[in-house]
Amino acid sequence: MNANNLVAVVGDDFPQAMIDDLRQHGINTEGLEIRKGEKTFFWSGKYHNDMNSRDTVEVQLNVMGDFDPIIPESYQDCQYLMLGNTSPAVQGLVIDRLHNRPKLIVLDTMNLWIEIANADLLNLLKRVDVLVLNDEEARMLTHEYSLVKAAAKIQGMGPKTVIIKKGEHGALLFGEGKIFFAPALPLEEVFDPTGAGDTFAGGFIGYIAKTDDASFDNMKRAIIYGSAMASFCVEKFGTERIMNLTQEEIQARVSQFVSLSAFGLE
Amino acid sequence: MNANNLVAVVGDDFPQAMIDDLRQHGINTEGLEIRKGEKTFFWSGKYHNDMNSRDTVEVQLNVMGDFDPIIPESYQDCQYLMLGNTSPAVQGLVIDRLHNRPKLIVLDTMNLWIEIANADLLNLLKRVDVLVLNDEEARMLTHEYSLVKAAAKIQGMGPKTVIIKKGEHGALLFGEGKIFFAPALPLEEVFDPTGAGDTFAGGFIGYIAKTDDASFDNMKRAIIYGSAMASFCVEKFGTERIMNLTQEEIQARVSQFVSLSAFGLE
Repeated sequence: MNANNLVAVVGDDFPQAMIDDLRQHGINTEGLEIRKGEKTFFWSGKYHNDMNSRDTVEVQLNVMGDFDPIIPESYQDCQYLMLGNTSPAVQGLVIDRLHNRPKLIVLDTMNLWIEIANADLLNLLKRVDVLVLNDEEARMLTHEYSLVKAAAKIQGMGPKTVIIKKGEHGALLFGEGKIFFAPALPLEEVFDPTGAGDTFAGGFIGYIAKTDDASFDNMKRAIIYGSAMASFCVEKFGTERIMNLTQEEIQARVSQFVSLSAFGLE
Repeated sequence: MNANNLVAVVGDDFPQAMIDDLRQHGINTEGLEIRKGEKTFFWSGKYHNDMNSRDTVEVQLNVMGDFDPIIPESYQDCQYLMLGNTSPAVQGLVIDRLHNRPKLIVLDTMNLWIEIANADLLNLLKRVDVLVLNDEEARMLTHEYSLVKAAAKIQGMGPKTVIIKKGEHGALLFGEGKIFFAPALPLEEVFDPTGAGDTFAGGFIGYIAKTDDASFDNMKRAIIYGSAMASFCVEKFGTERIMNLTQEEIQARVSQFVSLSAFGLE
């Protein structure tokens, strides 16, 4: 199995216990910069009744404002690269600083960058294999309402594979002229949707990396695992549920997705 | 195969060619009342950009205002009854006038009846097996935002099986403590969504009746057929696409649903 290498920046207000937790889960944190006397990125917001839309109450970029990603020498064998949501300029620097191109580069982005860093984002799109974004962002980026048309336009911008997340309505995977749809698990309660999209992306790339297979058919399974991970994320506040998951719980959740979508005509 | 028996009322303005078309498709129209000198029900509306929401421009109840359903003697062997969307009082009369209870009664309804005929609807719910409604209506009927909770409440009102339609986001089937999710086919263009919900319900009951199997597993397949039929409905104006469908086209569309949702972990 590949190492799981983290590149990130926090301030010295970031809880050491959380970093220890990551290490205990097998995450290499050599590329995590901890800036003395500075503060970690901060966001707070309010969710609406449908849990799919939210208003930002406060954002403090703090250390994120001039993030200069560090790629330790031990990271240079990276095969699968997940570029988490930050400015396209910083995401591009990570690719620049890897001596060899990874087998697969997955990019996450958001409405903010589509608006304020559109040219940077369009340049970056030419360099990645998979773009992950939500339905609203796909429409904003392409000016197409139909997600089928939006995905085709995005494929023309660079990424051969496009994943469009629809929150509680599941996710669509477009690639090789095919479409795959992964449902979201219908839940009685959504406690806190913060980080569900990131967890989805993490579950996706984690499955691809672990199985070392970036074929379209394996991406279908990866999206199911991503959806399963996201369904745990929303059950408790912050990272609480995710940090305490067992492999058995994950497999049981994936089985729920099977019974949710199999209809016996396959 | 059972006969397909229609109960309905129209005015003498209703095109005879459409009635002939129904007969050519094997529909028994003995229970279709044609009222001389009166006008057929009329609706016009405007769809919004997302094709899921619409505003009514004009409704004329006309002959629907005092619809008194006729059940011909030849209909008395009815095994599978689909109560299309009309007032709960009229829907109840159809059940009253059948000497033997059908094996399965499926009820379609809408926000209007939840608002203006709530008591009638609640009484009728005790007499049916399956309720078909959309997400907004399920929330309106139960005052629950979570569709999982809404479905459980509806099951407490009578129907053991609940189908919640989510338009372009697919449909959920709740029954036997299980949940099944059927995706909608992602489309490049939606030409006219009018009647898509009715076509879905028709495809559903048609598949159940043809296979003579109302088990939960067969209902999953029936919902896929319903979704396939609805995906045709929206491609052209009115009933044009549906009236000219072949069995081969339907099977090919169902295969698209298989490739859309099968992920090889089943």
